[in-house]
Amino acid sequence: MRWLITGARGFVGTHLVDYLMEIPAVESIWGIDRSPKPVAKRYATALRMHSAGLQDVNALCRCISEIQPTHIVHLAAQSSVAASWKAPIDCFLNNTNIFLNLVEAVRLTQCPSTILSVGSSEEYGPRTAEEIPLKESLFPSPTNPYAVARVSQELLSRVYADSYGLSIICTRSFNHVGPNQPDHYVASSFCKQAVEVLLGRREMITAGNLDIVRDFIDVRDVVRAYVLLLTHGQSGSLYNVCSGQGTQLSQLVEMICKLAAVVGRWEIDPERVRPADNPIIVGDNSRLVTLGFKPRYSLVQSLSDQIATWKQTLATS
Amino acid sequence: MRWLITGARGFVGTHLVDYLMEIPAVESIWGIDRSPKPVAKRYATALRMHSAGLQDVNALCRCISEIQPTHIVHLAAQSSVAASWKAPIDCFLNNTNIFLNLVEAVRLTQCPSTILSVGSSEEYGPRTAEEIPLKESLFPSPTNPYAVARVSQELLSRVYADSYGLSIICTRSFNHVGPNQPDHYVASSFCKQAVEVLLGRREMITAGNLDIVRDFIDVRDVVRAYVLLLTHGQSGSLYNVCSGQGTQLSQLVEMICKLAAVVGRWEIDPERVRPADNPIIVGDNSRLVTLGFKPRYSLVQSLSDQIATWKQTLATS
Repeated sequence: MRWLITGARGFVGTHLVDYLMEIPAVESIWGIDRSPKPVAKRYATALRMHSAGLQDVNALCRCISEIQPTHIVHLAAQSSVAASWKAPIDCFLNNTNIFLNLVEAVRLTQCPSTILSVGSSEEYGPRTAEEIPLKESLFPSPTNPYAVARVSQELLSRVYADSYGLSIICTRSFNHVGPNQPDHYVASSFCKQAVEVLLGRREMITAGNLDIVRDFIDVRDVVRAYVLLLTHGQSGSLYNVCSGQGTQLSQLVEMICKLAAVVGRWEIDPERVRPADNPIIVGDNSRLVTLGFKPRYSLVQSLSDQIATWKQTLATS
Repeated sequence: MRWLITGARGFVGTHLVDYLMEIPAVESIWGIDRSPKPVAKRYATALRMHSAGLQDVNALCRCISEIQPTHIVHLAAQSSVAASWKAPIDCFLNNTNIFLNLVEAVRLTQCPSTILSVGSSEEYGPRTAEEIPLKESLFPSPTNPYAVARVSQELLSRVYADSYGLSIICTRSFNHVGPNQPDHYVASSFCKQAVEVLLGRREMITAGNLDIVRDFIDVRDVVRAYVLLLTHGQSGSLYNVCSGQGTQLSQLVEMICKLAAVVGRWEIDPERVRPADNPIIVGDNSRLVTLGFKPRYSLVQSLSDQIATWKQTLATS
């Protein structure tokens, strides 16, 4: 198996490389990036980088012809809803258009790869209580530019799978949690702030709307799910990647304070309250479970590990 | 009223300019095009061209700031399903991305324009007999790259209308017919071929799948519908633009032969039979009719006029 990962240097990408490095059947792992920066030391022998921009379909064709990947995981994305409101054109170019370039390169080179098209729970849009937990059969109802870009990607995936005959598996992936997550994601932001309280660098945690409920899944379980889907999923099908458990953000911040052994004090910053936050996003993961998936990390474990990495990072900063 | 039209030089664009020229409340009509070719003589005083490419959002911002249009009709598109199969990347760039650039330019310049987002009946995809005539409430099920591009445009329109507060009205427009239609469209192709038979330049009409049923509406009714929608439609809403009448293509070719006074002989060219043609596409136009719309042109009239223009064109070629 030759694996090609877009966004291999990112949060999910590095966890995926970690996991693939443990699988004997994986012969080689390739990343693709416009700038050929060296990879972190621990990946120096395992991860080989190919220099090409995802905006350039000809460069992508050359990359795929050379590498002949058996499996492609498309993680490169601009996956912030907030950023998409500010720059919708960039959001579309860095999500939908780069994905289209990638599948088109696979089609043009006739490379027999299986491709993972990573989508988002944002595609579901606002839903009624009766529709929770969200099933893949629900039709998307995107209400922000990022969600539209992901729905467009999913619709393109179907055309490429059904009509061009490419092997493509789609996900709608839910909130991630786990070590090394950037701090613009909610769980990581709370963990970082709790450690800062512990270190006496701030007085309390600043938060947005704490009433909303989200479905958190550990990034290490996410990458296991992705490998399972690419090796055992059905082409043209769609899978929720989630824990199936809802956690209210107020509960999350309490868990984090307890795990970090700090007194739970927080304040609401109106700037962080988004105007159209969905009150509840919880997925149904039974389609993924049918393939044999079982999460390994409890939320407590994920948060403990996330706090531990923040302690390391902040101690040296 | 200051009107700005993208694709003003095209088939629908020229008919729209013709119609707008008759409306006293229209102060000015602007077109936008990358190359500043002169317009046809008849439009020399009525249509003013602004030189800008739809791929360039900064140029679009300057254009909109200068013109300050009250109404924008976005007709520029790459609207061929066949071409979209061959070049899906170009299809996306020349449909979804240019539309996004346009609405983003309107948002950034804060110009209080009302925008018409022209979509396609292709968005519906294959449907069961019970779903005919197709209603706007049906969720899209696109099965080719062009249809995906149009659905993406429609989803973006909703976000721009609902969340950014732009005034945008969406259509799903059905098969057009009428004078000066390019001959890669089915009705025009048959009319042209019938005139060629009449002139002794060919023996019979070559056709694709004649069993399929389509909903034809005269382009002159289409542009009347577009003006009605932009002046009386509801922002954020979606309207089928169609006749509501289904015509089997075998019936269409018979009508054309009769009107052109040629013996109806045709042959099926397997090259023209598309693998995944929807058997029936007929729309429900009651939402448009509620606004006061009534088609003026019967199909017989449209075809007669289309034959007449082909006679003129071919007599001088």
